[in-house]
Amino acid sequence: MEKPALPKGTRDFGPAEMAKRQFILTTIRTIFQKYGFQPLETPAMENLNTLEGKYGEEGSKLIYKIRSNKSLRARLSGEKIDALNSIYKFWLPQKSELGLRYDLTIPFARYVVMNRHEITLPFKRYQVQPVWRADRPQKGRYREFYQCDADVVGTDSLICEAEIILMIKEVMHKLNINKYSVKINHRGILNGIAEVIAAVGREGELFVAIDKLDKIGEPGVRKELIEKGFTSTQLDSLFALIGTKGNNREKLTALKTTFASSTTGLKGVHELTEVFDLLNHYRADDNHVEFDIALARGLSYYTGCIFEVKINDVAIGSVSGGGRYDNLTQAFGSKEQLSGVGISFGIDRLYDAMEELKLFPKETLSSSKVLVCHFDEATRAYALGLVTQLRAAGINSEIYPDVSKLKKQLDYANKKMIAFCLVVGEEEMKSGELTIKNMESGEQEKLTITTIIHKLTH
Amino acid sequence: MEKPALPKGTRDFGPAEMAKRQFILTTIRTIFQKYGFQPLETPAMENLNTLEGKYGEEGSKLIYKIRSNKSLRARLSGEKIDALNSIYKFWLPQKSELGLRYDLTIPFARYVVMNRHEITLPFKRYQVQPVWRADRPQKGRYREFYQCDADVVGTDSLICEAEIILMIKEVMHKLNINKYSVKINHRGILNGIAEVIAAVGREGELFVAIDKLDKIGEPGVRKELIEKGFTSTQLDSLFALIGTKGNNREKLTALKTTFASSTTGLKGVHELTEVFDLLNHYRADDNHVEFDIALARGLSYYTGCIFEVKINDVAIGSVSGGGRYDNLTQAFGSKEQLSGVGISFGIDRLYDAMEELKLFPKETLSSSKVLVCHFDEATRAYALGLVTQLRAAGINSEIYPDVSKLKKQLDYANKKMIAFCLVVGEEEMKSGELTIKNMESGEQEKLTITTIIHKLTH
Repeated sequence: MEKPALPKGTRDFGPAEMAKRQFILTTIRTIFQKYGFQPLETPAMENLNTLEGKYGEEGSKLIYKIRSNKSLRARLSGEKIDALNSIYKFWLPQKSELGLRYDLTIPFARYVVMNRHEITLPFKRYQVQPVWRADRPQKGRYREFYQCDADVVGTDSLICEAEIILMIKEVMHKLNINKYSVKINHRGILNGIAEVIAAVGREGELFVAIDKLDKIGEPGVRKELIEKGFTSTQLDSLFALIGTKGNNREKLTALKTTFASSTTGLKGVHELTEVFDLLNHYRADDNHVEFDIALARGLSYYTGCIFEVKINDVAIGSVSGGGRYDNLTQAFGSKEQLSGVGISFGIDRLYDAMEELKLFPKETLSSSKVLVCHFDEATRAYALGLVTQLRAAGINSEIYPDVSKLKKQLDYANKKMIAFCLVVGEEEMKSGELTIKNMESGEQEKLTITTIIHKLTH
Repeated sequence: MEKPALPKGTRDFGPAEMAKRQFILTTIRTIFQKYGFQPLETPAMENLNTLEGKYGEEGSKLIYKIRSNKSLRARLSGEKIDALNSIYKFWLPQKSELGLRYDLTIPFARYVVMNRHEITLPFKRYQVQPVWRADRPQKGRYREFYQCDADVVGTDSLICEAEIILMIKEVMHKLNINKYSVKINHRGILNGIAEVIAAVGREGELFVAIDKLDKIGEPGVRKELIEKGFTSTQLDSLFALIGTKGNNREKLTALKTTFASSTTGLKGVHELTEVFDLLNHYRADDNHVEFDIALARGLSYYTGCIFEVKINDVAIGSVSGGGRYDNLTQAFGSKEQLSGVGISFGIDRLYDAMEELKLFPKETLSSSKVLVCHFDEATRAYALGLVTQLRAAGINSEIYPDVSKLKKQLDYANKKMIAFCLVVGEEEMKSGELTIKNMESGEQEKLTITTIIHKLTH
């Protein structure tokens, strides 16, 4: 028999990984809910016509398609089946009508269109589900991975942008990540730059190149844009703009002058200024927030503010990103202009970064806090009552189910990283003074179950 | 443009459904963890050879297969492609090598085989994930639905069975379900019955029929078995046995005599007796637990105790079921005998039953507790500081993002079932005495933010 294996690009999450993933996901979910976002889940399978034409040519190739159950064979005549068999014997071809979820945005848009009359605007939803892409697997890139999105649609209030920044800061704080930056920019600023350097109509090329600044530096970006026909004068203006010095407020003030004659540029400056003002009204500051004139992610999609979050000191790309878009439901032919703004957290990258920086709290590692150990049928029977008392006090506990040597029971506790062992021998059973052993320090003392419960819960 | 739709047999879960589903799932997860079970997640996609041959002929047909990305066309010569095109023009056939998860047991078994050297036995895992079946959709049967399983493998201690009963009772209690029964039986009892009525070798037919007792009654079962060639004498003995009167202990005592010459029957009686003894050691009782001699679910799979949970007063099948099996990893050619016992909760049925019995607590309905309302830019700016204070106190809160009429803001709160509105006008802003309105009772009073926070958190 063949040894079982995992499909390429997929993963199992065992207890240790799951505990850490749940720590991240519970943190993010709790914060989303604190800000009034409500959960949504959509099916893994979508009709192919919901997905097709939504992700560009490259994206479409990466959609996993599901074989329908109606066999083609059932629809063909005998002669054609013979012909078919002569080509490819062991296989029944079928037409696909279903595909696997590729992201969370299109299913969200579909949900909004289908439930438009029941939804109260502004609609704040979050969604945490896996998506599937038939991509070439490589380090950090999987065929099945979780996305974790929050969006508000139906309002263009910049309060939503400010709250996205607040949520990001709260998530980072709760995950013990202290060194990071929330980069923010605005599509209007980018368009203003194109106007100022006389490159209107060529925003695409321009910002694809700028987006690589982090990776290839100014010389690399210059080279690429020169090859595309940009002039040195244009590039000098561009880099003068990008190089604007100062803190967030100072940069915005400087750009106000630069964009004196660019309506779109000024709109960007005004909106970003308002976002910073709003943060102050929330009694928050702009620590960690960095207005980055060269931030250009996914230009074609976003129409207002754009965000990206990077963690310092780790060679991991952005762990979160998002922005404002003009029309969520356009792809489904809706004529209503539903503007929205969203943020997405990359769980796998957050996980890798936290692992590298050793930021996971220790108590996430195991689920049981106490293992109750025993020596024979009699002490085991007595121990069951203790387990009940521990659990009633809300302490995750288990009893070693078989009558075994104490060493085996302690080994089990060590391997499962259970913090305490409660050992019940004949003597303990008589006196009611139980031996509790701290598995990390090795210390042990004799205490009553009441005292033990008090110690573990206070 | 076509209107978007959901694939048949699938569902979206909007905020209201999600809140209720999360209430159920969080309750079950918390209890699993309290009993020392640890989480596992496996990928939605499995290699087809992991799935095939594991679910019987009927089950195999219901596995969703994924089209691989390597086009068959790429592997065929020009001539064969022409032949293929002449058969079925608009479609590129592809061989499938992946399928969607059909249950949680086979992926669990695969995980155990693949990670056998890292796993500490006994291994207690729980798993809550969707599964997919290409079944004909009908009321209460979906093509995508969640399973929620907990299993212990690597021990045959009956402590596991007793803890399954305790977990079920705790889940029901925490879900506010008071009228239910946990039916328990044992494969040994069933085999013993076959021995006693001289039907050894015909257990399959016998217990498929008995399993229908609830639905078709004694006459129906008699008719079915007579047709299969059972004699009236056999059936009289059978129904005499099934009709054994008394409480759990009395029934077990009676069967001890009946099975005097059946080793397998006696084993069943002894094991069930031990399970009831263990419950007492846990300081629990057998309330809600019913030894049901006619319970026969999935006979071929289980080898020891079997369980089934039914809720009274609702026309919904069992909401949970499970039992002990002999060899989890056999299907993957493992020679190690890994005995285990598991329980599975049916989330959809629990949901439907709780909905019918109106058992969902009210506070599950909405995520925000407070909506902060305002009248203009100035009061909105002031209100932002209040939102920060509410959230810092752990109160899920939101602010209406746009400057709008108060009525619109209150409507939004009503539709989202937000419990309180905090209204901030010019006067409130000056005095610091804010208007808080209870959206259900309509009552309102003027209080400082400190008092409001105290009231909402105590």
